[in-house]
Amino acid sequence: MTDSTALPTVPSGRAADVGLLRPVSASPRVTLLAGDTAVLAALLAVESGWAAVLEEAGLAPAGSAAVVAAAADPDRYDASGIAIRAQDGGNPVIPLVADLRAQVAALDTAGTGAGQAVHASLTSQDVLDTALMLVARTSVDALLGDLEGTTAALAVLAEQHGETLCVARSLTQHSLPYTFGLRAAQWFHGVAAAGRRLENLELPVQFGGAAGTLAAGTALTAGSSATPFSLADALARQLGLATAPAPWHTNRLAVTSLGDALAAVLDALGKIAADVLFLSRPEVAELAEPRAAGRGVSSAMPQKQNPVLSVLVRSAALQAPNLAAQLHLAAATFNDERPDGAWHAEWPALRQLLALALGAARQIRELTEGLQVFPDAMCRNLDLAGPLLLAEGVHAAVAPLLEEKDGRSGKQQLQAVVDRTLQAPPAEQGAAYRTLLRAAVPAGLLTDLQLEELLDPAGYLGQAAEISRRILAAFPDFASPGPVPSSATDFPATDFPATDANGARRG
Amino acid sequence: MTDSTALPTVPSGRAADVGLLRPVSASPRVTLLAGDTAVLAALLAVESGWAAVLEEAGLAPAGSAAVVAAAADPDRYDASGIAIRAQDGGNPVIPLVADLRAQVAALDTAGTGAGQAVHASLTSQDVLDTALMLVARTSVDALLGDLEGTTAALAVLAEQHGETLCVARSLTQHSLPYTFGLRAAQWFHGVAAAGRRLENLELPVQFGGAAGTLAAGTALTAGSSATPFSLADALARQLGLATAPAPWHTNRLAVTSLGDALAAVLDALGKIAADVLFLSRPEVAELAEPRAAGRGVSSAMPQKQNPVLSVLVRSAALQAPNLAAQLHLAAATFNDERPDGAWHAEWPALRQLLALALGAARQIRELTEGLQVFPDAMCRNLDLAGPLLLAEGVHAAVAPLLEEKDGRSGKQQLQAVVDRTLQAPPAEQGAAYRTLLRAAVPAGLLTDLQLEELLDPAGYLGQAAEISRRILAAFPDFASPGPVPSSATDFPATDFPATDANGARRG
Amino acid sequence: MTDSTALPTVPSGRAADVGLLRPVSASPRVTLLAGDTAVLAALLAVESGWAAVLEEAGLAPAGSAAVVAAAADPDRYDASGIAIRAQDGGNPVIPLVADLRAQVAALDTAGTGAGQAVHASLTSQDVLDTALMLVARTSVDALLGDLEGTTAALAVLAEQHGETLCVARSLTQHSLPYTFGLRAAQWFHGVAAAGRRLENLELPVQFGGAAGTLAAGTALTAGSSATPFSLADALARQLGLATAPAPWHTNRLAVTSLGDALAAVLDALGKIAADVLFLSRPEVAELAEPRAAGRGVSSAMPQKQNPVLSVLVRSAALQAPNLAAQLHLAAATFNDERPDGAWHAEWPALRQLLALALGAARQIRELTEGLQVFPDAMCRNLDLAGPLLLAEGVHAAVAPLLEEKDGRSGKQQLQAVVDRTLQAPPAEQGAAYRTLLRAAVPAGLLTDLQLEELLDPAGYLGQAAEISRRILAAFPDFASPGPVPSSATDFPATDFPATDANGARRG
Amino acid sequence: MTDSTALPTVPSGRAADVGLLRPVSASPRVTLLAGDTAVLAALLAVESGWAAVLEEAGLAPAGSAAVVAAAADPDRYDASGIAIRAQDGGNPVIPLVADLRAQVAALDTAGTGAGQAVHASLTSQDVLDTALMLVARTSVDALLGDLEGTTAALAVLAEQHGETLCVARSLTQHSLPYTFGLRAAQWFHGVAAAGRRLENLELPVQFGGAAGTLAAGTALTAGSSATPFSLADALARQLGLATAPAPWHTNRLAVTSLGDALAAVLDALGKIAADVLFLSRPEVAELAEPRAAGRGVSSAMPQKQNPVLSVLVRSAALQAPNLAAQLHLAAATFNDERPDGAWHAEWPALRQLLALALGAARQIRELTEGLQVFPDAMCRNLDLAGPLLLAEGVHAAVAPLLEEKDGRSGKQQLQAVVDRTLQAPPAEQGAAYRTLLRAAVPAGLLTDLQLEELLDPAGYLGQAAEISRRILAAFPDFASPGPVPSSATDFPATDFPATDANGARRG
Repeated sequence: MTDSTALPTVPSGRAADVGLLRPVSASPRVTLLAGDTAVLAALLAVESGWAAVLEEAGLAPAGSAAVVAAAADPDRYDASGIAIRAQDGGNPVIPLVADLRAQVAALDTAGTGAGQAVHASLTSQDVLDTALMLVARTSVDALLGDLEGTTAALAVLAEQHGETLCVARSLTQHSLPYTFGLRAAQWFHGVAAAGRRLENLELPVQFGGAAGTLAAGTALTAGSSATPFSLADALARQLGLATAPAPWHTNRLAVTSLGDALAAVLDALGKIAADVLFLSRPEVAELAEPRAAGRGVSSAMPQKQNPVLSVLVRSAALQAPNLAAQLHLAAATFNDERPDGAWHAEWPALRQLLALALGAARQIRELTEGLQVFPDAMCRNLDLAGPLLLAEGVHAAVAPLLEEKDGRSGKQQLQAVVDRTLQAPPAEQGAAYRTLLRAAVPAGLLTDLQLEELLDPAGYLGQAAEISRRILAAFPDFASPGPVPSSATDFPATDFPATDANGARRG
Repeated sequence: MTDSTALPTVPSGRAADVGLLRPVSASPRVTLLAGDTAVLAALLAVESGWAAVLEEAGLAPAGSAAVVAAAADPDRYDASGIAIRAQDGGNPVIPLVADLRAQVAALDTAGTGAGQAVHASLTSQDVLDTALMLVARTSVDALLGDLEGTTAALAVLAEQHGETLCVARSLTQHSLPYTFGLRAAQWFHGVAAAGRRLENLELPVQFGGAAGTLAAGTALTAGSSATPFSLADALARQLGLATAPAPWHTNRLAVTSLGDALAAVLDALGKIAADVLFLSRPEVAELAEPRAAGRGVSSAMPQKQNPVLSVLVRSAALQAPNLAAQLHLAAATFNDERPDGAWHAEWPALRQLLALALGAARQIRELTEGLQVFPDAMCRNLDLAGPLLLAEGVHAAVAPLLEEKDGRSGKQQLQAVVDRTLQAPPAEQGAAYRTLLRAAVPAGLLTDLQLEELLDPAGYLGQAAEISRRILAAFPDFASPGPVPSSATDFPATDFPATDANGARRG
Repeated sequence: MTDSTALPTVPSGRAADVGLLRPVSASPRVTLLAGDTAVLAALLAVESGWAAVLEEAGLAPAGSAAVVAAAADPDRYDASGIAIRAQDGGNPVIPLVADLRAQVAALDTAGTGAGQAVHASLTSQDVLDTALMLVARTSVDALLGDLEGTTAALAVLAEQHGETLCVARSLTQHSLPYTFGLRAAQWFHGVAAAGRRLENLELPVQFGGAAGTLAAGTALTAGSSATPFSLADALARQLGLATAPAPWHTNRLAVTSLGDALAAVLDALGKIAADVLFLSRPEVAELAEPRAAGRGVSSAMPQKQNPVLSVLVRSAALQAPNLAAQLHLAAATFNDERPDGAWHAEWPALRQLLALALGAARQIRELTEGLQVFPDAMCRNLDLAGPLLLAEGVHAAVAPLLEEKDGRSGKQQLQAVVDRTLQAPPAEQGAAYRTLLRAAVPAGLLTDLQLEELLDPAGYLGQAAEISRRILAAFPDFASPGPVPSSATDFPATDFPATDANGARRG
Repeated sequence: MTDSTALPTVPSGRAADVGLLRPVSASPRVTLLAGDTAVLAALLAVESGWAAVLEEAGLAPAGSAAVVAAAADPDRYDASGIAIRAQDGGNPVIPLVADLRAQVAALDTAGTGAGQAVHASLTSQDVLDTALMLVARTSVDALLGDLEGTTAALAVLAEQHGETLCVARSLTQHSLPYTFGLRAAQWFHGVAAAGRRLENLELPVQFGGAAGTLAAGTALTAGSSATPFSLADALARQLGLATAPAPWHTNRLAVTSLGDALAAVLDALGKIAADVLFLSRPEVAELAEPRAAGRGVSSAMPQKQNPVLSVLVRSAALQAPNLAAQLHLAAATFNDERPDGAWHAEWPALRQLLALALGAARQIRELTEGLQVFPDAMCRNLDLAGPLLLAEGVHAAVAPLLEEKDGRSGKQQLQAVVDRTLQAPPAEQGAAYRTLLRAAVPAGLLTDLQLEELLDPAGYLGQAAEISRRILAAFPDFASPGPVPSSATDFPATDFPATDANGARRG
């Protein structure tokens, strides 16, 4: 007996979750890629793909695959009803297969016996694990598109602003001169490295049968040239997934690796968002998010222009770690040949990670493609620290020149200059440092001009340009602009399977 | 520009999340209590309640509250569309208020000027925080109903089985004789204590205005006998929420306390599920879940009868800790007067906790109300350990009687008996222990009868009965059967507000 | 066989964790309160307290408690060695009790038979759970001292700066005029509310015996006027802990509530740290941490003055949520009468939470007691937004006065003024808004003076002062300065037990 | 001013953490590999390695490296004191470098000017990040040794028990016949796959200077043939770490990937522990942990033999997910060029993960190398389900043979047999199924012998053997026995650096 007994159906408008509390991922695109309809379609694609594999292997009657394929149209199914009935067995495959059998029976007017091809020798976990990998495959591909759009935009910023001076900050305080180009390059670095890890993920098919022995599959293939392994490989090809050497019912590395990779992507996006949020504050004003009509508004304050893209990305990045942890926790408690709760605890976390990553990647792409950069403000903030910012370089260059004085080394003399400078009011520290430094360093050792050169931020950028170059060179596929998203490519058809895929990322 | 620009609408069947991957909470009841329609209804109830408060205070035109109330019918709004538009401002209140204003304008055919009452002096956070507390209020009340149903069932089991012998286990091994009644009482203890904490929660109204200064509210009430504080208190009364001494925009203890309390409930349910899952294994067979047609089936194995209620509850318990952590993480990073991502990271976690608790509490209630108890199996398992299980008691009673022998104390002599016993094959250890023990203890010190009494499990139950009694006595309101859930009480009307509530739990 | 067999002893300098990677809590004070020596002392205090209870009840020989007390001197024990031997049984109580028995035997030269009082009828979990509650008791008391020091300092700031104007920020952008006093009051609010929750915690004694039935305790008290319950209550009194109605071996609400309360404290401290970190950035400069010789320095940059107190507090706040989650996870998987791993997973998380809270509370206290406040900078930043910041108030006040014009309401006319203003360069928006607004509002409706009043930030503070007052009034015990920490009170004696305590917070 | 001012030193016995609350990792071996002394040694190894690199590049005086190497002896430093002083700057490198400079000055009696080589152009983060990678390198190598020992033992079990029948379980219930060999092979699969991921990890050197621009390094190498990049590569070689294309100060993928890989290892170990814990319960008794004197004892119950290795491993597995999440959370909030708390929040989590993995891997190795297997008990439990366990296979084989009867298909007729069987008492279901099945299937379709063959568990193992073979074949390097750990190899010298290493795993 499910919870639904004798209860009125929830009206169609009474949806569990349409995204009201998830602005990061409340987009039609994310819903199409990773929403419950996509899950339903993927489950059906697995069953339908399996029928095709069986028919091709001569293990299902001729014509049955076509009937199953016709029956596997998601529109024929009531996802909400299946969700509720899933409580009886603990997973949605059981009621879905029942409905699928009924559809096949109804559609098999020619009497092919297509019913035999449905779910034959499979177990729920085979179907659900494979379907989630299929949803992941499509979502990851779409995600990579947005990550590449982002890195392409960042590569442009890195090159355009290779000489745009700004200030580096550590533990919130100004540390050294920097360039905005290097900052963009490091953002690129984070996204590209996470993206590459995502590209290299294996998303495998699952086939093990009720207990992971392939017992039913063995019976099914007895006397045929096929084996359960060849069927599994064929299903992988059919669905564009990777093959697996063995059933992975109880070893969840494929799932945790996917979760870890998604979390790593959101880490990289979160880092950018954190920086943009600070750098676009009114007191700093070095950057601004791209404007768009109606975006960033407030319900109370008419003048507000909130950096809402960064806010949403940051909120996603704050959620990802615990979701990835949820997948590890499930994996660590995966007892028996199918566990008593851990498997069920995987599904919502995995989907939520996919949805957050998809939403946030699109937002960061829009952000980076339209980021407003204000070099003047960067200069102004760089000047706040004044010449003190160059103290490290001054010490390195000047200390060896100074003679010991009153028992103090050159380095100690220069530190004393800094310490005295810091006692001046902030606004006067720049001038004070110049004066005190000039007084401490004999002109014979260093001319005024030489001293000024030491205090020029543009002269103390180290390898900023070369580091940027190296970073871009390390990820050439992420540095060049990818295809422009259009409404066509943008909106993935969720009609699984992709017949010619091979489990690697689809080009 | 949102993500939705120029994109086709998601077809109504293409819902983001109807529960396919959440069997714990995929029920119409949970959806009605905590789904997005409930959120939408709560948001509208806050706006509508506010209009009523303003009109009553003479701060909105006569008749305006009725117009706003009519306009606040959730069926008038497109939740999915609002969710998508919410990306622009980062929260759903902004587009909802725009739509509400339009509805009010359209409905105010009498020209009351009701538009002035809409959202006047509020900020998005006021509405969203209050609405989530309202959703929590209703959900917590429903949850408490199921927890009380559960504890009532457990109290009956505790009393019925006060003398049902079984074995206690620690670190998986048999430790001492026990009673099933005490186990049920300790389960009761966990649920009742968590339930009481839930009962004592304060779920406060939020009102602070754009920056938490009540600036707009102050302007609004200028010259009136009302103050922003009196309006907030009136809103709390109107909605059945607790009052707050001050805005809590940036201090999230109300939210984290709610999350912690829900996690504590799920901890207690998870503990029961873990025990039932073990105790209903075929090798143990001390308990079985209530049977129901179609429940516990498998898609592959015709004979399977899975303890699916416990599985689902356990899966919920494995998810709750990280969700509660998410709320703390948000609270710990709540910068400024409204944060740059942390607030947004609260919402999905809070809703998911509510949904998991609601689903799992109903499942555990059904489980405990129909739990099948098999005292014979308990006895059989108790006998597995045989008299060795009484070794602790034997040592305590006998060691002081024994004289030192070969330099070994009485205790050491008895430990030697145990050690030698453990070298026998498991099946023979019972007999071996009896024999060896008899040999080690002179009959003059202890007769055969006295020895047998020491080896009787029923004689070494300590305070099992008294502990059970004390536990039930400590939570009298949880020990007696509450009202039976019917389809009427079961299905809460989500038409907020509850006009006569006062913020404490509604009876 | 432990891991240590035939291995060289780790040299004393080779300590596992002296704090190198934990700057938040690497202080002698935290070590004394919550380090392993404190744990060892607490374990011994429980055993020693138990002997005292037994002797007093006539259940142990006269004089035995004194012997056990003498033997329970932590300096007699090798904590590292016990830790290693603990691997055999999975907990440190087993080897410790063995060593304690040996010490008692050696010290009982008078032959009181004190050995009978050691661990009699206890189980490891009784001792370890109680000892951790004892460590928590002392730590929480010390923590409350620092929280009260912090709130006292914040109360002073709230009063001193009740009229110090600054700007409120939401989603990083300027929202409305604010006062620094209200900000300090809201910080106070967070800390005081979390502190109160901490004060109200119950930290109970644990006594259940091997399986939670009190079987051995029942045998021990047979024929005496004592009961296991009376002994447990006496132990609670002895140790200054709360009593428990029943053993809580498997219901971990006491542990998770402690963890939740500590996390809530760190949430409140983390919120302050996040704000101070931003407000003390060079571009903002509204606050600065107290200076201290040598603090905030860098290994590379001579001029750095890092806000290291806030950095450490923030790092603690980022760690607390997952540690609290760890406690819930343990509670949710606490199977059987003692679990197969969950209990062991509690200990490190609980201790780390205590240490982080103790360290961070001391740091935040030092921070708030010496916080440097720069009202001029606050004004300067407030002026950045210029009169636009008052747009909300202007709309509320002016829109009703304006007549409809070209089909646009007063509100729409004013929004148009704002929109046009935002098209000006930021530096000119202030002047632009004034001009455009003046043009939009007929002088007959509002004089120049009235308009300027509307644009005065000091005139739009709403209830800032009253909210501060209410917050302080809600926590009177936190608002007044507590005792000054001195080296005497500061350094808690860890010599448990506190003989006259009663389980409530000690004075 | 640190917390230590005017406080008494913590007595040497008063250590913060010697392992009392961490039985998983409280071993001298783990302390030597990953304890604070190892961290101290690694920090010094980085500084010392750097001096060697500089001297070799002609950037430090001849002879200076030897002086620095001599000064870099960990025994010269007070780790506890450094930990306390670390609070001033927020990290231990600052006080350590000060002490190192003093040591170098004192040891440089020959006046080489070795002081110039100390920390030249480095920043704290360079040293700390590199040192933690160095600790990770050594720990991961040791960990891999134990993982390979484990997989070798599991490979033996998989082969020995390839035909040992047992029962598979899903959702706690018996599902199908299985072999213990396949179970061991799947355990192998989990460990080997996680081990391979660990092997492939890159653990890179860090060098970026104060702001990640290599500014000081550029100044240092000016006029030399070296570049900051060549110095970094030389340091990587010197320390046996991987090179990095660029500073990764703010991109923490190296850290999170390490954490994810360690969590994945603990997931695999946790899965084994969960299974062993269940399978060694008295009611099941299919397995037992290896016995060792004194292991598994209880403080109360003389007869207890707890599976303490599994308990400890499980407790580690329950802790790992949240620790890995902590690293992601840090990465996701890594703002600026060095963050304001996130970096500091990485360190304890990373070390704890290393320690847990090291401890648990040694325990699982001991467990698997000495696991006691009881095939008789496996048979007994397999028989519990009786022939019903074969129902899936019966349906597949028989349903197609049956004619439709009373409108019910063959499959439905067989399901009816199962359903009727399940109404019998459990003990009689085996016989009932046989009888009912025989009655339902005409003897003409299936002889008694054929029916019995269908009901023979050994005949329904599917590909159990082939799956095992495939798994072992997929990880040949994990399947063969590795070197036996001896006290020599077992006890890694922590005297970094390993001069001939190259960043890949050291053989």
